[in-house]
Amino acid sequence: MSNAAPAKSKHDDDDDASSTITLADYILHRLSSLGCSSIQGVPGDFSMPFLDAVSQHASFEWVGNTNELNAAYSADGYARCAQIESRCSDEGQAAGGGGVEQEQEEEEEEESKLRAATCTPLEPTSGREKSSSRSPNRRPRGSKIAALCTTFGVGELSALNGIAGSYAERLPVLHIVGVPSTQAQSNRALLHHTLGDGDFAAFSQMSKHVSCAAVHLGELLIGEAQEEAGDVESECSSRGKMLAKEVDALLGRVVREARPGYLALPTDLVHLPIPTSLLRAPLNTSHAPNEEKVEAEVLREIFKRLDESSDPLIIVDACTIRHAAINATLDLVHRSGCTFVSTPMGKSALPESSPQYAGTFIGPNSEAAVLKRVQKSDCYLFVGALRSDFNTASSFNNLTDQAKTIELHSNRTVLGHAVYPRISMHALLPRLADHLSPRANELRALYGLTQQERPSNRLPSKLQEGEMAGREGENISQMWLWKRIGSFLKEADQVVAETGTSSFGILDTHLPGGRTRLHSQVLWGSIGWSLPATLGVSLAARELHLGRTLLFIGDGSLQLTATEISTMIRLDLHPILFVLRNDGYEIERQIEGPDQPYNNVPSWNNEKLLQAMYDPNVGQSMGGKEKEAQKSHAHDKQVSLPRYFAVKSKKELDDLLKDEEFASCKRLQLVEIFMRRGDAPRALVAQAQASAKLNS
Amino acid sequence: MSNAAPAKSKHDDDDDASSTITLADYILHRLSSLGCSSIQGVPGDFSMPFLDAVSQHASFEWVGNTNELNAAYSADGYARCAQIESRCSDEGQAAGGGGVEQEQEEEEEEESKLRAATCTPLEPTSGREKSSSRSPNRRPRGSKIAALCTTFGVGELSALNGIAGSYAERLPVLHIVGVPSTQAQSNRALLHHTLGDGDFAAFSQMSKHVSCAAVHLGELLIGEAQEEAGDVESECSSRGKMLAKEVDALLGRVVREARPGYLALPTDLVHLPIPTSLLRAPLNTSHAPNEEKVEAEVLREIFKRLDESSDPLIIVDACTIRHAAINATLDLVHRSGCTFVSTPMGKSALPESSPQYAGTFIGPNSEAAVLKRVQKSDCYLFVGALRSDFNTASSFNNLTDQAKTIELHSNRTVLGHAVYPRISMHALLPRLADHLSPRANELRALYGLTQQERPSNRLPSKLQEGEMAGREGENISQMWLWKRIGSFLKEADQVVAETGTSSFGILDTHLPGGRTRLHSQVLWGSIGWSLPATLGVSLAARELHLGRTLLFIGDGSLQLTATEISTMIRLDLHPILFVLRNDGYEIERQIEGPDQPYNNVPSWNNEKLLQAMYDPNVGQSMGGKEKEAQKSHAHDKQVSLPRYFAVKSKKELDDLLKDEEFASCKRLQLVEIFMRRGDAPRALVAQAQASAKLNS
Repeated sequence: MSNAAPAKSKHDDDDDASSTITLADYILHRLSSLGCSSIQGVPGDFSMPFLDAVSQHASFEWVGNTNELNAAYSADGYARCAQIESRCSDEGQAAGGGGVEQEQEEEEEEESKLRAATCTPLEPTSGREKSSSRSPNRRPRGSKIAALCTTFGVGELSALNGIAGSYAERLPVLHIVGVPSTQAQSNRALLHHTLGDGDFAAFSQMSKHVSCAAVHLGELLIGEAQEEAGDVESECSSRGKMLAKEVDALLGRVVREARPGYLALPTDLVHLPIPTSLLRAPLNTSHAPNEEKVEAEVLREIFKRLDESSDPLIIVDACTIRHAAINATLDLVHRSGCTFVSTPMGKSALPESSPQYAGTFIGPNSEAAVLKRVQKSDCYLFVGALRSDFNTASSFNNLTDQAKTIELHSNRTVLGHAVYPRISMHALLPRLADHLSPRANELRALYGLTQQERPSNRLPSKLQEGEMAGREGENISQMWLWKRIGSFLKEADQVVAETGTSSFGILDTHLPGGRTRLHSQVLWGSIGWSLPATLGVSLAARELHLGRTLLFIGDGSLQLTATEISTMIRLDLHPILFVLRNDGYEIERQIEGPDQPYNNVPSWNNEKLLQAMYDPNVGQSMGGKEKEAQKSHAHDKQVSLPRYFAVKSKKELDDLLKDEEFASCKRLQLVEIFMRRGDAPRALVAQAQASAKLNS
Repeated sequence: MSNAAPAKSKHDDDDDASSTITLADYILHRLSSLGCSSIQGVPGDFSMPFLDAVSQHASFEWVGNTNELNAAYSADGYARCAQIESRCSDEGQAAGGGGVEQEQEEEEEEESKLRAATCTPLEPTSGREKSSSRSPNRRPRGSKIAALCTTFGVGELSALNGIAGSYAERLPVLHIVGVPSTQAQSNRALLHHTLGDGDFAAFSQMSKHVSCAAVHLGELLIGEAQEEAGDVESECSSRGKMLAKEVDALLGRVVREARPGYLALPTDLVHLPIPTSLLRAPLNTSHAPNEEKVEAEVLREIFKRLDESSDPLIIVDACTIRHAAINATLDLVHRSGCTFVSTPMGKSALPESSPQYAGTFIGPNSEAAVLKRVQKSDCYLFVGALRSDFNTASSFNNLTDQAKTIELHSNRTVLGHAVYPRISMHALLPRLADHLSPRANELRALYGLTQQERPSNRLPSKLQEGEMAGREGENISQMWLWKRIGSFLKEADQVVAETGTSSFGILDTHLPGGRTRLHSQVLWGSIGWSLPATLGVSLAARELHLGRTLLFIGDGSLQLTATEISTMIRLDLHPILFVLRNDGYEIERQIEGPDQPYNNVPSWNNEKLLQAMYDPNVGQSMGGKEKEAQKSHAHDKQVSLPRYFAVKSKKELDDLLKDEEFASCKRLQLVEIFMRRGDAPRALVAQAQASAKLNS
């Protein structure tokens, strides 16, 4: 796919009171101001008018996925990667949270220390520079949303599982659906892509269950009286204003709630004129500030609990990342001196190299030393808790006494069993840091794990040189693999782990600090998600100048979404795709049916699969007199050709990981790691037993 | 995938009053009685307890698709192929329609003539023999339903677009969803595959929009008082009876309404005991009989209209096939002597070799002679009309004066503008044949198209020998291709055409009579559908001893669902996959953006793709000492290796089609037909203009 030559949007030249832009450009402008520069999706006739606007807009790249589910997964990955908020960044500060900004100045000194300790500066991308220099709005700091565009019915429903995953796991994704014209809808026309019953609302109703809000721009207009008096121009203008307001409100909710939003855009409204002046008002993406009196009461209660505690433990969980509280939590850890652990969904939010880090807390499946450390505490301060089965090893909350718990969320606070609705963590976190900082030395001294006791994921856990390659020809075990990978990772790498052996195995891998992130779908757990998510992560990582993107996926999950490799190659993205070749759905085998044929997958030749996904010669393969004409249609730009590797022993993988050319990621690389069926990571074996019990 | 050794179901040996079977076996038994012997789907931990029952059941094959959307598409294809009702068959007669059976005896003489004229006998398959000899129920004649099984949340939502297609186009598909245990649901446990909010009903609510009914077996029990008095055994039995009744009612609706049904099956209910005696009552899949008085009035009105008409024309449409009215309509045509035309969705329902066939009626995009013939008529008798845009070239009903129209549907009759609800065509069709038969010679004489005027799809339209191969090296055009394919087709072939150039082009192809069928998704039109649908069609065609399965798909649509080729190979199915290699989404280009990059697709090497989908050596590719162990995990049975062909000129395609080995379909074959971008079938060019206009 070639990028269309940058065309100027109308509003660049023409911003006087009477100037207008199209509704499509209005939406794109707002998306751009939220840091979005790639639109995922598959074209369809009802979405093409909008895609024409995307093609002509200088700030956007149309991704063109191989199907809509993959597009939604990719958007999910794009939004995840963009949640890399870091004070090292000029822009990457906490969004929302009315009370955050005034606190920030007081923290500057502390910040600069952390900055030096944990990360390298983040440069703004050229794409983003372009967009912010053109935009009158400042992009809300720390946020970046993803967008996908599908067509009515067939396209949008194919995307639903991906959208539902973003809903469950809280990722801000705008789903734009190109729908039939308002005229066709008013006539209840029996169009293709309908259910044949004249009902044009069924699909948006379905999407409501997995969206923070679903806006059907056509319905809003159809609902209006169509034959209003008054001149056509002012009517147009008032309709335009109304729709623009709906778009703004939807985007505000998507960012604020970190959840997908649904926008149905009829073909005939794509070019509706919108007053350019509306773009001057910034989007409102902030949470309402906490009610003062309630916040004061909550703080008194929390302080009391903290003062009574001799050993408060911070537990960093999913929504620390999802609701842009990483930096505030890092401050709290640093200034309070408290020990912290991460849950599987919170892993990588805070640097694992911190001396206060005590490991990954996976409920009863934690390493013994971690569990011991957690049980020693007399006060649990959860930041962004999400106590799902796979995030707690099905213990939910029975290992951390609820009476001793303080839960900070984006939209509520829980003290013991008391819930305080609408009291958000954003204003509380800096106050807790203030309160605890006088005790920092005392609390730091409580850390209490000796070097020997430190969990395997606590320190680099670099294998000794002798262990790196194993014995001659020794097969690759799960236990060895995940530790070995730890030594391969670098600062700012983005690691994507598929639900299965990978998402459990990676919990034993040491991740460097700073802007390295683990992306894993622990709650929604849709197999196949990680491959297209890797596309989105790679795209965002390229835009944000982050490090390499590494995927770990099994041979079973790969088959659900494998075609998306072709999109990665076409867009010249360079992830490493590690495929664990272990003969089928190992996570399922651990739960039930270890020898059942339904857990088998067909044997693929993944080397040929990779070769199939990009054929530089096909433009020349047309026979006969039209060969030349066909050749001119070849539209793929020159990209780096992908490479395939098969590794069947520890030595082979070790050699590959040490190869500088390989590690430098100058092309897409697929590495098949041949492993024994039936081998599974420690945490998965234990989780599978718990899940099988819950099913019976 | 190996087939599990046939294991006896409990109910084979044990059918006394107190005997029970599990709920899973009860569902499977009912499915088997409806002619279903393949379960499509992807395993997940909440569905595996049911899949264990499938594996152990002698009558079922677990398909194991590469993803859930593909599974749903495949189920759709399976249900379509099974709608081949034919009086040649011992079993294949019209289902439902209270009044049909008594009419049938009177028709026997006529039937036997038609039988000889249009088809060869249909032998029951070995699988079906097995199932019917074991079953106390007789399979409802003419029906066969498809089934797929997915897992809660992630799996079921991935399937939704496919299910919606079956809903829109009216295919009977049971969607079984393995859901968390009733205990976990009662506790609102925060499980993986949930939205994280304790709501276990959201997904069934979403499915309701695209199902005739959604039954959540867990909710039914959770809704019951849990602490009832009484002995445990009788409580179990009453619960079992209640759930069995719900299953029966759901299956009845699925067959009757020819639409998908949704069944949520909690893991802990899979083994719930159900009294075997319940299986003695046959499933009620019939429509209620028409109300006598109303039916009499409707018949009087229809007879009056027919008597006043000098030239009634029968228009055969989609629901003739969907509601098992093919044979009754064929009788009507034969006995009345009326001329008939088929719509795109009705094409192939009745034999195109009939002398009364006047062509495919595509509204204003019909060939001129067909349009002339239609406009000559003074009375339109629509059977199973579905007047959607692509089925009428966006004319909807403005070419057939509604005042002169009689519409027969499965659930209503429309005379002019008057609707008679609940008056079904099944009882009416034989009465119309009776009424018109005295005029048969008169009406037959009105046919009125000369041999020269006959449309290209009216007769075999075999190209002359000189035209078959074109000039030396001449490229393959759309206009040539579809006529050439007509000469390749044989009786009982199943032709699947993707929405795009294929579904429009195939309208110009002559299809032989009898049990040949065209399968195309004209209303729902989801790109990518046809490839997995070909899997389902091939499976059903093998079970029903039908002819070859041929797919026509473009290189763009192929990429959405290509992985399903691997399932076809693994199951040793032998379709021919014709891939029209024309450089992207041609149907979209015809509507909008002919040169927009969003209509490009990446260039794939489809020869390597095919090779990638089956690797007989992979079981031996494990290195080191575990090589032998890994080898023993190779589970793919021996299958015929697929073949790839590329054809770039008329001559090359002609040679291939004349090759007997190729035509005999002894393996899966993929043929890439290289064609010029921008070339499109006549009917598509016209439709694209109409659609673009409607969008603006």
